[in-house]
Amino acid sequence: MPLNRQIHLISRPSGPPGLDNFSLVSTPTTDLEEGEVLVRHHYLSLDPYMRGRMNDAKSYAQPQALNQTMLGGTVGEVIASRKPGFAVGDKVVGMGGWQEYGVVPAAMTGMLRKVDDSSIPLSAYLGAVGMPGVTAYYGLAHIIAPKAGDTLVVSAASGAVGSAFGALAKARGCQVVGVAGGADKCAYVVNELGFDACVDYKQHLDAASLSAALQAVCPQGVEGYFENVGGMVMNAVLPLMNAFGRVAVCGMIAGYNGTPIPMAAPQLILMQRLRFQGFIVSEHPQVWPAALAELGALVASGTLRVRETIAQGIESAPQAFLGLLGGRNFGKQLVKLI
Amino acid sequence: MPLNRQIHLISRPSGPPGLDNFSLVSTPTTDLEEGEVLVRHHYLSLDPYMRGRMNDAKSYAQPQALNQTMLGGTVGEVIASRKPGFAVGDKVVGMGGWQEYGVVPAAMTGMLRKVDDSSIPLSAYLGAVGMPGVTAYYGLAHIIAPKAGDTLVVSAASGAVGSAFGALAKARGCQVVGVAGGADKCAYVVNELGFDACVDYKQHLDAASLSAALQAVCPQGVEGYFENVGGMVMNAVLPLMNAFGRVAVCGMIAGYNGTPIPMAAPQLILMQRLRFQGFIVSEHPQVWPAALAELGALVASGTLRVRETIAQGIESAPQAFLGLLGGRNFGKQLVKLI
Repeated sequence: MPLNRQIHLISRPSGPPGLDNFSLVSTPTTDLEEGEVLVRHHYLSLDPYMRGRMNDAKSYAQPQALNQTMLGGTVGEVIASRKPGFAVGDKVVGMGGWQEYGVVPAAMTGMLRKVDDSSIPLSAYLGAVGMPGVTAYYGLAHIIAPKAGDTLVVSAASGAVGSAFGALAKARGCQVVGVAGGADKCAYVVNELGFDACVDYKQHLDAASLSAALQAVCPQGVEGYFENVGGMVMNAVLPLMNAFGRVAVCGMIAGYNGTPIPMAAPQLILMQRLRFQGFIVSEHPQVWPAALAELGALVASGTLRVRETIAQGIESAPQAFLGLLGGRNFGKQLVKLI
Repeated sequence: MPLNRQIHLISRPSGPPGLDNFSLVSTPTTDLEEGEVLVRHHYLSLDPYMRGRMNDAKSYAQPQALNQTMLGGTVGEVIASRKPGFAVGDKVVGMGGWQEYGVVPAAMTGMLRKVDDSSIPLSAYLGAVGMPGVTAYYGLAHIIAPKAGDTLVVSAASGAVGSAFGALAKARGCQVVGVAGGADKCAYVVNELGFDACVDYKQHLDAASLSAALQAVCPQGVEGYFENVGGMVMNAVLPLMNAFGRVAVCGMIAGYNGTPIPMAAPQLILMQRLRFQGFIVSEHPQVWPAALAELGALVASGTLRVRETIAQGIESAPQAFLGLLGGRNFGKQLVKLI
């Protein structure tokens, strides 16, 4: 069996994580038992939610276990199978973790999803046609539920979730305004993703300044906000919310390292009768089929062209993950393993 | 026609309001035109929402006009009528404002509701069987929507909304925990209103201390929170919310004078997949009939015994209102006018 290189979490960060929280470990893959599948991973997905799991705190997911392979989404190819329905050569998406090969136990093969990479690139199944895309879909279609003509704002607009959100919202006839960090990301959001406008938060020192810039491109106010970031960006958007606005709370990356990110004026929830809804897309499996169908069509037709930042080799995963947390990726952050 | 004494708003407060923001004005009531009704007010309702209307700010309601009679709910008796369907002697609830008599214009008589005071005291139509009661009902039944056995928390528990909330929640088999200010209010909430527990926020200097006291009486966590106060109380309750908890945002009296009341940890919305919903009960007229039927039965049967603080005479209304904002009332704050 092939040698398998893995990234383990070996200590928990206090504050920003560092490379020393991770370790590269090599072990042989084990022989397959009846019902098991061996997958060679082509791409590993890096996602902000992984930061939360590095803490040993009450949250929606169990903490990442120490001295175990980091969990994470993967896409790859079946190279050995003792499970009916999975054949050598099948392309599969799963939760294979930060490693080059994954032996999928019999009880977990239900989590493997066979995918077709003839019209959609394999890597897209970790982004626009995968968990990030469905995340955008759920927040848009099931929480914000906009009408055509509504103005929607999304933070981290150039990322995997934000870019899918923009395409889905434009398909529904909405005005879509992004918030992103840097002129190049903002240009991409408008010129390539087709957003109506994008504001560079790095040009603003406080929420009031950012809010004024957003107001200039949202003159009618905001009906829906998709929150990936929290902190200053949230405090800039909330004063622009119109009555009965909806806020889909998907991420608060600004606070993941323990930085306080207070909401300055929660009384706006009352004054504008806002609805806030936090959600985790894995808890809503019923929406995945419709979401993946719509997202797959947007990618296959070229309507949604997702930017990717690709690190090479499993050993690069920790550094790439730290870059993602610092916003140094551009679009979907992946690690290419072969 | 009788002389009518009114309270006008003559200036807007910056920070806490004072008596100098109000003025007592005497004017004769006008002769009735066709379609109008003259009501002698027995009770005037004082409610926290009136503070928000004193500001000239973007909010859910138009600001209270300067040099006009303060708006507010009233209950009284028809003493003259040129409108079919209203007869002298009818008891009516309406929005008569801070004055002894109200001439209800023809176009506004649809807002008058005839009530029966044979088994329910007239004043209760301004409290448990009126707007505050329906407010509690909407937040409980339509936002929190609890199951039997759920633990619910309500701030300002001894007030008009809080006391109705407790009775409605107990009728649904919930554990109900109040937050109130002072040992006497807390004793009333438990002993007379039948809450399972009540925590005195005045015994705590910060949210962490109050949160620990609440946790002791909510050992299984909290499924639903009805927010009347905001600030320290909100920051104490939120860390106790269980997954998929609901927060009905009805009031934030702690911030009405401009005091900042930040939400310390909005990331809890994500981590526990909470839903926050701000609401104004007047925007949900469809729930009023069912709500008033249930609340009327609770009051008529003696299950819901509402405490009232009654000021005497229209000239006492401003001082009583300042007392309400400072929490010096006990239960529903009324002004008795005859």
